[in-house]
Amino acid sequence: MRLVWLLWTCACLDAAEPVDWILSARYVVTMDPQRRIVANGAVAIRRDRILALGPRAEIDKHYKARRRLDRPQALIAPGLIDTHTHAPMSLFRGLADDLRLQEWLEKYIFPAEAKNVNAEFVRWGTLLACIEMMLSGTTTYTDMYYFEEVIAEATRQAGLRAVLGQTIIGFPAPDASTPQQALARAEKFLEQYRNDPLIVPAPAPHAIYTTPDDVIRSARALANRYGVPMLIHLSETRREYDEALRKRKMTPVQALDSIGALNGRTLGAHGVWLDDADLRILKERGTGLAHCPSSNSKLASGLARVPRILDAGIAMGLGTDGFAGSNNDANLFEEMDLAAKLQKVGTLDPQVLPAVRVLEMATITGARALGLDKQIGSLEPGKRADLITVRLDAPHAIPMYNVVSQMVYALKGSDVNDVMVNGRLIVRDRHVLTLNVRQVLEKAEQYRRKVAASVGIGLSPNP
Amino acid sequence: MRLVWLLWTCACLDAAEPVDWILSARYVVTMDPQRRIVANGAVAIRRDRILALGPRAEIDKHYKARRRLDRPQALIAPGLIDTHTHAPMSLFRGLADDLRLQEWLEKYIFPAEAKNVNAEFVRWGTLLACIEMMLSGTTTYTDMYYFEEVIAEATRQAGLRAVLGQTIIGFPAPDASTPQQALARAEKFLEQYRNDPLIVPAPAPHAIYTTPDDVIRSARALANRYGVPMLIHLSETRREYDEALRKRKMTPVQALDSIGALNGRTLGAHGVWLDDADLRILKERGTGLAHCPSSNSKLASGLARVPRILDAGIAMGLGTDGFAGSNNDANLFEEMDLAAKLQKVGTLDPQVLPAVRVLEMATITGARALGLDKQIGSLEPGKRADLITVRLDAPHAIPMYNVVSQMVYALKGSDVNDVMVNGRLIVRDRHVLTLNVRQVLEKAEQYRRKVAASVGIGLSPNP
Repeated sequence: MRLVWLLWTCACLDAAEPVDWILSARYVVTMDPQRRIVANGAVAIRRDRILALGPRAEIDKHYKARRRLDRPQALIAPGLIDTHTHAPMSLFRGLADDLRLQEWLEKYIFPAEAKNVNAEFVRWGTLLACIEMMLSGTTTYTDMYYFEEVIAEATRQAGLRAVLGQTIIGFPAPDASTPQQALARAEKFLEQYRNDPLIVPAPAPHAIYTTPDDVIRSARALANRYGVPMLIHLSETRREYDEALRKRKMTPVQALDSIGALNGRTLGAHGVWLDDADLRILKERGTGLAHCPSSNSKLASGLARVPRILDAGIAMGLGTDGFAGSNNDANLFEEMDLAAKLQKVGTLDPQVLPAVRVLEMATITGARALGLDKQIGSLEPGKRADLITVRLDAPHAIPMYNVVSQMVYALKGSDVNDVMVNGRLIVRDRHVLTLNVRQVLEKAEQYRRKVAASVGIGLSPNP
Repeated sequence: MRLVWLLWTCACLDAAEPVDWILSARYVVTMDPQRRIVANGAVAIRRDRILALGPRAEIDKHYKARRRLDRPQALIAPGLIDTHTHAPMSLFRGLADDLRLQEWLEKYIFPAEAKNVNAEFVRWGTLLACIEMMLSGTTTYTDMYYFEEVIAEATRQAGLRAVLGQTIIGFPAPDASTPQQALARAEKFLEQYRNDPLIVPAPAPHAIYTTPDDVIRSARALANRYGVPMLIHLSETRREYDEALRKRKMTPVQALDSIGALNGRTLGAHGVWLDDADLRILKERGTGLAHCPSSNSKLASGLARVPRILDAGIAMGLGTDGFAGSNNDANLFEEMDLAAKLQKVGTLDPQVLPAVRVLEMATITGARALGLDKQIGSLEPGKRADLITVRLDAPHAIPMYNVVSQMVYALKGSDVNDVMVNGRLIVRDRHVLTLNVRQVLEKAEQYRRKVAASVGIGLSPNP
């Protein structure tokens, strides 16, 4: 079947319209409402926007590009969207694995954070995470950590798009000794980054079990005042769920809703323990969720009811979560594969979460969870030019019978070849164009020595 | 702590002994009985064997190498062992995903096999799979398919080690119209490859529900006569288990045992549905198992009780299984990561299967499951020189606090840099030295067109 494509052409059909970029590839995976895939396709880009897309021959006829990237052995897809990370924790990668949450937190992570996390740590950790994310196809990420204004600087330097949540928590944190200080910090951050083309600043109360209700309420008010989302961990563990029931006679979702915390755009991370009443509340409030399959499985938090949640009309994206304990890398290709497999084995139904729904989670549904689906998440005229090329010529990528299935189950983060965010090419042929990678890796190695010494891990390689 | 290492030194200490290879790296992960990891280590190799290993300074002092490979930014590990594959099915990669087993088999796989599988198909499919396996660190694989003598030729050409099981099944197959013909084929194959340095030939009755008992008995006798293992699918699905209980009043393991099929070395693939009595039988018979986490999750077969099986003293390795429906690639790094995560979330215990046990499954325990642990599975003097180097300088591999944890949760198949099998370097700097990769990929693309046409899949890319 031949696709008929609406082109935004200029009035005079005989004169090719100038554009900044034309990218062409064997397939363009649009993730538009029809989930169209264009064979031998191309995308025309002007400044930060997609101007047109369609068959390459048509695009080349109507547009004249200042620069081009022709990738006949690759596909073009929307940049992937990570809806939950703690980017600077990349410097704690695999610091302590295979432990129970409490031991992991109390013996390793809290001491390591107390002794190491400052503005410089956060800067280098973010740069490392950004390199890893862009090299595996992530163009937008969502963060919850400390010194978020430093994370914003590093993210702009990398050229990535991000929703950055300044953490607000009920005990002394590396960047604020009280929740009131954290709220003030968040407000300053929101003021500083309002209307930024790449950064959406957000307040991020940690969770209902760590942050007082009145502080969460203030964070909500702050988010609404600036028209940004609020980020919060939500119903991640059985313990959180049971404790809420015991102490408040409400589920975590009900508790948040009862204090008005869901009145406005919210992104809840995890959503593992949700009952049907919770889903009705989340749907009604338009709350988005971040599904973190690596984290939920590695920490044994449980299996989110992803198909049920999506069927309820709730936007649930994918998240990689932190780099220590919960995950060890920030690779959405792995999260896609894992999300599909966990649901199938967890429900004993191989059809419960097909590849296309998983790819939606990593793109358009993730964008919807963040309230950014007008700007990103699919390749459509008028949207921001956030896109990746993924090579199709690796041995593990041949043969290909179904493009979407191949993306979810066979292609790897390492197949990502080029990355563009907001019309700016930030990775070309796997070379990061925006950062000094060698310098960042050297810094990361220096931090390793410091962190290891601070928590009494020797440099012995033995397990 | 400084490791004291026993070196097999020549009598005269002042004269360096000549060897064929010295490989050095930042770490040598031995997987020996003490699971020792040597920092700044080296391995000396003569012909097909490891002669010595230890700190690089010691090895360099005692041995003089004809050729060397120094990888200061990598680790050296035993080559990974895949205990269950259907290599030629690489040409069906992702042919039909997200389907129920019966629909998948009857509508796609059986027709596709009937119309396409012949000796040439098997040859090119095996070559493609071998390229993919070696580029993700697999040095030994275990196959169950048709035309196994062609698979053996292709495997020798690739330079990989393999246990190759000629399928024997109770209905007409691409290479034999009766089980008797298949048995004769298997015997000829066993005769042809007895005492091969790389290939262990094996009879592979498909499963108890597809192969008559007397045929399985004959296969068992054949295996014992030649001193090779028998391969069989075993307790993969709930349906197989329930059917055996209904028809035979026995579990699949009990049924196999009751006909004497486990009297001799056996490798059972999957082992998802096993009760405690089954485990006692398998332990007593010395039967090995292949755990296939991608396949068991993607096909929704269920979660094997891996920790319980290992605790029972049964050797359970890792397998990637086929490339269509059950998995889409042959990458043991992904299987390691998935095996650990599935167990944790399936049992809600983050400590139930730590990284080191998973790495054991992919190396020494896998070797034990195949009865090859005297030859392969760890780096020790006297063992075959099957080893890989894995780069540690990718952004997702930095920082590193624990070598084993990093291997299982952070490193990728794409980090594999060099591969040696039986003392022969077959991959160097990710270049396959033994095969014409471009030619194989072109052939695979030709087969894609043929296969797609044969099952009525158009070339339309739409999902």
